[in-house]
Amino acid sequence: MLVLVSEHSSTFHAAHPVPRASVELWHDEADVLIVGYGGAGVCAAIEAARSSADTLVLERASGGGGTTAMAGGYLYLGGGTRVQRACGFDDSAENLLRYLEASTNDPDPEMFRIYAEGCVEHFDWLVGLGVPFNDSIHEIRTNQAHTDECLLWSGNEKAWPFCEIATPVPRGHKVADEGDAGPLLFSKLHEAAREAGTRIRYDTRVLTLIVEDDGSVAGLMARQAGKDRAFRARRGVILCAGGFAMDDAMFKRHIPRLAGQVIPIGNPYDDGAGLRMGLGARGAGLHLSDYHITLPFYPPASLTYGIFVNAQGQRFVAEDAYHGRIGELASRQPGGTVYLIIDEPHFDRPEMEGFELAATEGSIADLERALELPQSSLVTSVDFYNRHAAEGADPLFRKQPAWLSPIQDAPFAALECSLGKAPYMVFSLGGLWTLATGEVLSEDGERVEGLYAAGRNSCGIARSAEGYASGTCIGDATFFGRLAGRAAAARVPESDGL
Amino acid sequence: MLVLVSEHSSTFHAAHPVPRASVELWHDEADVLIVGYGGAGVCAAIEAARSSADTLVLERASGGGGTTAMAGGYLYLGGGTRVQRACGFDDSAENLLRYLEASTNDPDPEMFRIYAEGCVEHFDWLVGLGVPFNDSIHEIRTNQAHTDECLLWSGNEKAWPFCEIATPVPRGHKVADEGDAGPLLFSKLHEAAREAGTRIRYDTRVLTLIVEDDGSVAGLMARQAGKDRAFRARRGVILCAGGFAMDDAMFKRHIPRLAGQVIPIGNPYDDGAGLRMGLGARGAGLHLSDYHITLPFYPPASLTYGIFVNAQGQRFVAEDAYHGRIGELASRQPGGTVYLIIDEPHFDRPEMEGFELAATEGSIADLERALELPQSSLVTSVDFYNRHAAEGADPLFRKQPAWLSPIQDAPFAALECSLGKAPYMVFSLGGLWTLATGEVLSEDGERVEGLYAAGRNSCGIARSAEGYASGTCIGDATFFGRLAGRAAAARVPESDGL
Repeated sequence: MLVLVSEHSSTFHAAHPVPRASVELWHDEADVLIVGYGGAGVCAAIEAARSSADTLVLERASGGGGTTAMAGGYLYLGGGTRVQRACGFDDSAENLLRYLEASTNDPDPEMFRIYAEGCVEHFDWLVGLGVPFNDSIHEIRTNQAHTDECLLWSGNEKAWPFCEIATPVPRGHKVADEGDAGPLLFSKLHEAAREAGTRIRYDTRVLTLIVEDDGSVAGLMARQAGKDRAFRARRGVILCAGGFAMDDAMFKRHIPRLAGQVIPIGNPYDDGAGLRMGLGARGAGLHLSDYHITLPFYPPASLTYGIFVNAQGQRFVAEDAYHGRIGELASRQPGGTVYLIIDEPHFDRPEMEGFELAATEGSIADLERALELPQSSLVTSVDFYNRHAAEGADPLFRKQPAWLSPIQDAPFAALECSLGKAPYMVFSLGGLWTLATGEVLSEDGERVEGLYAAGRNSCGIARSAEGYASGTCIGDATFFGRLAGRAAAARVPESDGL
Repeated sequence: MLVLVSEHSSTFHAAHPVPRASVELWHDEADVLIVGYGGAGVCAAIEAARSSADTLVLERASGGGGTTAMAGGYLYLGGGTRVQRACGFDDSAENLLRYLEASTNDPDPEMFRIYAEGCVEHFDWLVGLGVPFNDSIHEIRTNQAHTDECLLWSGNEKAWPFCEIATPVPRGHKVADEGDAGPLLFSKLHEAAREAGTRIRYDTRVLTLIVEDDGSVAGLMARQAGKDRAFRARRGVILCAGGFAMDDAMFKRHIPRLAGQVIPIGNPYDDGAGLRMGLGARGAGLHLSDYHITLPFYPPASLTYGIFVNAQGQRFVAEDAYHGRIGELASRQPGGTVYLIIDEPHFDRPEMEGFELAATEGSIADLERALELPQSSLVTSVDFYNRHAAEGADPLFRKQPAWLSPIQDAPFAALECSLGKAPYMVFSLGGLWTLATGEVLSEDGERVEGLYAAGRNSCGIARSAEGYASGTCIGDATFFGRLAGRAAAARVPESDGL
């Protein structure tokens, strides 16, 4: 039970599972093995262990947290949470579902419904674990709140067309901590996992899965203390090892359009190894070329009074949309060329570093020339915008009246927002195709027995750059991590029935 | 050698390979097994058989041809073919490569270079097999020529920005036959495959692959004469079973944005089974969410004088681009809403059925109202366009002067080109990640020993809707099918070396 197995250390590839027959000795075993100890892994661990499953987590880093513990600590939750109600917002599961369904062209019916209906319970469950949320709202338009206020308008709720599809309510729930609250969130979850009896092994790099002849997953190979060791999973393996933004090859392969043009974000171990293991064991990939892309031009919120234009001098988005939606649409303009045009009273430097001024001029006509836009293109766009903005209207993209103000007081600035020049930041959203329970499916829709995935090893409810909202990934990872933990703990392998 | 193997017929899934150890008897064997007998399969067969490999093709239909034999019979070839030279066009491998590289944001350096450099030889090889090409050009802008003329401007060569990146030359090479020339092309290839000694079995549906413990591919299971039979591949299996446009589930999973909005095209067996086999055997998927989409609004070519506008009344593309590029950009406009605005002298009904008139009015202002576009948006766009068109310029999208004419003679028409309303047609481009030799790679970039893919089971040089040109798929399938046939025939399995 304590000896290593294989002499082929250097030959392991994540996407090349090891046949069960070649395993001579198991180093360790558990009912449920969890690969990766971030937001998804810790929640899977809590629920698996609470279901009386012997639960073992293998984490590559020397401590837990993953990308969750690096984040602001937002969860995208709704349907009428305690905080939403206390702040006077009337949300419902139906309203949340309508919004989520509008956020992608591919809403998985079962998964989206379960999330919408389960959000309130999930919030209460987190509170029950000691995760604190204040009954307060951060009203300022920003991409990261630094206070301990809870609610943030963290998506496109108030922007068109979403505002016409679902009643706008804020759903970004920040854990009560000043600055980034991810560490506090994770520490509370970690406490709960330990109390539930989870065993955790750090500095343990999972190499690949071990599969039976029938293709079911029997365990995994991991590198620990300089040795390659086999770990047996009596019930199931749950892949929770994060996205692939930090792996140059996978990024280039699946998101070539943006490779080399953006800043990948995540923790250094977001290298897609968990995903590759699942793909190699017959799991189907879903939305692998989808991502979250942000153009963090606000704060300051006042820049929202500007207009984005492309190389044709045309507007293309409601500027009061979430920075992710704007980032996606901006990055798809011809040649990736985009400027934010704004006048003196509303201009201020973006708080995020990396933005440059492309030009400042005394008139829009001069700005148009300086940017080498087609003659009269920008002038025409600004005139059109101003004429309607003066009347509180935006007939093109229905930017909300609160953000409409004619662009008329010189000097005028053009903030450089072109792809490859502005600090666009990206992480991957795609993952393995799973049921809501985390059960991994093949391209035929067949279950890969014994294999589960959650967080960014799975394709959850976060699957579209145009519709992403802050907090969706951690909301999704913690929520579906729990379901996967319970499902794996409850599995009775076929062989047990013999 | 002639008995079936498995009693589990109903349980085979394409993406779930069978372990070699469970195969009790091989029904048949060959050096090279080819799955699917369309353009890729037949070329793989010719080269494998000519390399002295015992070559066996398994085809699900009762005859060969696949989607290649249903097509117009164009191959996208260049670099200075006999026809190009005879028609007075000066192309080179470098010029072709520049164009191909501009057609996608992800040009595989090796694969693209080999294609560009090998095109002339490939053309001559086809001629050597008796495939006829006339030294003539079809000058009319169309999406399908019905004459036996050879050269067609079948891509975006003359449209901006391509015209500035590579010297524009026509590269669509139509096999010399009136009407669709796909059947003639295939019949000549079929003749060559038979002469080379290929064995061909029709009515044979390949079910899944057979893999060794080490993950290498040893053969496949196929359904033949009502029986599930195992076929051994001594050297390799080549997947050439076509795209997945006809499989609703795969289409929805990988191209959800367009599912239910477009007409999938291909032959009924383009159901992705070959692709699923490769994915289940550890092959990585590449560009699975990419596709060719056409908005076949021309012929008549005169409609090119119109302008496309979106729901904001904005133009978004050079209207003299290839219908595939226009289809892609049109389908991505907000809400998918697009109209072609044109005046009386240039209007004619599209030859393709399925287009409706959204409105006809006596003035652009009335047309704007009838289409419920924002007030003065269309008027502004048309004024801007007309002003420059009168001078032979298109400062926004550089439509070429030959197609510029002010839109000024009433009545004015708006042709309905919105996604879901116009007859957009789509097929899948993505496939397995391979080397130029067709060797399939895993997500780790590791070779899946014994497995090859070509045509739309692989991701070749056709990988972008914005850059697609007619004839690329058949050019690519026949070209890389040959390379795969040669590579598989030359493989010496590891076990042979022991």
